[in-house]
Amino acid sequence: MTTHSPDIPAPVLVLVPGVTDAPTDGDARFHVADETAPQLAVTDLVATRGDGVFETIGAFDGVPVNVIPHLERLARSAAMVDLPAPDLETLVEAVEAAIFAHEPVSELSVRVMYTRGIEGAGTPTCWIHARVSDDWAPYRTGMRVAVLDRGLSTTSARTSPWLLPGAKTLSYAVNMAAVREAKRRGAADVLFVASDGYVLEGPTSTLLVRRGDEFLTTPVSAGVLAGTSVRSLSDHLEAERGTGVREQLMTIEDVTGSDGAWLLSSTRLAAPITHLDEAELPVDRALTARFQQVLTGAI
Amino acid sequence: MTTHSPDIPAPVLVLVPGVTDAPTDGDARFHVADETAPQLAVTDLVATRGDGVFETIGAFDGVPVNVIPHLERLARSAAMVDLPAPDLETLVEAVEAAIFAHEPVSELSVRVMYTRGIEGAGTPTCWIHARVSDDWAPYRTGMRVAVLDRGLSTTSARTSPWLLPGAKTLSYAVNMAAVREAKRRGAADVLFVASDGYVLEGPTSTLLVRRGDEFLTTPVSAGVLAGTSVRSLSDHLEAERGTGVREQLMTIEDVTGSDGAWLLSSTRLAAPITHLDEAELPVDRALTARFQQVLTGAI
Repeated sequence: MTTHSPDIPAPVLVLVPGVTDAPTDGDARFHVADETAPQLAVTDLVATRGDGVFETIGAFDGVPVNVIPHLERLARSAAMVDLPAPDLETLVEAVEAAIFAHEPVSELSVRVMYTRGIEGAGTPTCWIHARVSDDWAPYRTGMRVAVLDRGLSTTSARTSPWLLPGAKTLSYAVNMAAVREAKRRGAADVLFVASDGYVLEGPTSTLLVRRGDEFLTTPVSAGVLAGTSVRSLSDHLEAERGTGVREQLMTIEDVTGSDGAWLLSSTRLAAPITHLDEAELPVDRALTARFQQVLTGAI
Repeated sequence: MTTHSPDIPAPVLVLVPGVTDAPTDGDARFHVADETAPQLAVTDLVATRGDGVFETIGAFDGVPVNVIPHLERLARSAAMVDLPAPDLETLVEAVEAAIFAHEPVSELSVRVMYTRGIEGAGTPTCWIHARVSDDWAPYRTGMRVAVLDRGLSTTSARTSPWLLPGAKTLSYAVNMAAVREAKRRGAADVLFVASDGYVLEGPTSTLLVRRGDEFLTTPVSAGVLAGTSVRSLSDHLEAERGTGVREQLMTIEDVTGSDGAWLLSSTRLAAPITHLDEAELPVDRALTARFQQVLTGAI
């Protein structure tokens, strides 16, 4: 069903029907399934409503990075949309099984998908899908980013939790439309700005800004996703220099006037912003290279 | 795979792989498929991103209502998310085939689903799913509605088309979360309000307000879906009285101070609002009954 280049190792699918069960010895809570065959019902609420949550974990030379933070965030996203708590121990094992079943490659993208399941059945659907990562090298060199209005205010997360700010849901049509709009504008990615003028995050990434010796990111309380990559970098910076990444509301001018900015993600890693709309930003290649090493778990 | 009560006739699934093809004689562009078997790949972008558009058509005693307006709106939604234009002639035939294959029932809910398809394949996925409608009788009698902030302004549609206002996408996680929040508040449904204070629409319905002899609805330019049901009622009212439904921006107070309000949808039909949060609204049972008849195509 899925078509792949013959040169690229086949993706691996692990179905996790027992994701909400307490683990019991000898009971198979997940299994490798045929990735080339249809596996989802058309009545799964992910297909009829985009009703589910997910995570994408990067695995480098077979070693997944930040598995527990990703799965804990999945559990938080699930709680935000009133899905039952997934069993994280089962998910850790299923992620490992997917990576183990995949041919060894340098960069693997491991999606953990958790949906409300078939309408009326009351049982979530869960699967892990591991595949060779896209070639993100051009992004890691530096990319143009378009600023696009996200419509919502930074106070929305506090006042209107049903807008699901901070939940990583499977309703990403707006995120995808924003990336298409950025490409029409000659950019590779998007930095969303809130209706009250503060920058937020990318459609699939977290903002990191350098100002002198300081590293800054958007506060999670403004309605952005709590980034796993920014946490890794923060821990690294804190261990190295005593100060991690600090949360601060920033305007577009704060970013264009900064000493460098990145969009961070678990598979693309640290993508330096060369231009924010028409404004050129400084790019520190050595620092970016070090960030890549931290985010692949090499440091 | 899907579980149904033995008393309820089985749903019907029609797959439409040829939805973007020009029709050619004798070529099967769609076929009835096993609804109880998995039919979607886990890599379909509807499952990984909620990336698709849809319509829900009501069919009453086997006769679908507003098929062409629904399919034309599907095509507009598809254009808004840069999906290729579906062939509407094929879709009309596929909808008819789904209804024909279903056991005769009084109320059928026919979903037309159109997704970006399997990642990298560049071919949309399309299916029609016909099933006995839920029992909407309690809604048609009258329902409590909670007002919830939609976060966006009524000017968003003009300024930020990538937010996809007015597109009926398969990214409905926020809509579903809003309905859950309404139920927590003891209401059955939601009326969204924009950040600039004007009421918008329900998560799956269009607002209709009566003020004396006037019937009003939210302007499509404010970022709401162009309702097929409100158009039917407008045509009916215009034929009967010379004046149809007029578009006007309204505040919450405009609704609570009105002579009646409804949330309209193709399957629930006209659901009168008995209470908007704590404010009680008048309900005209005779008029509501007439609206139901118009919307089922009986008048």
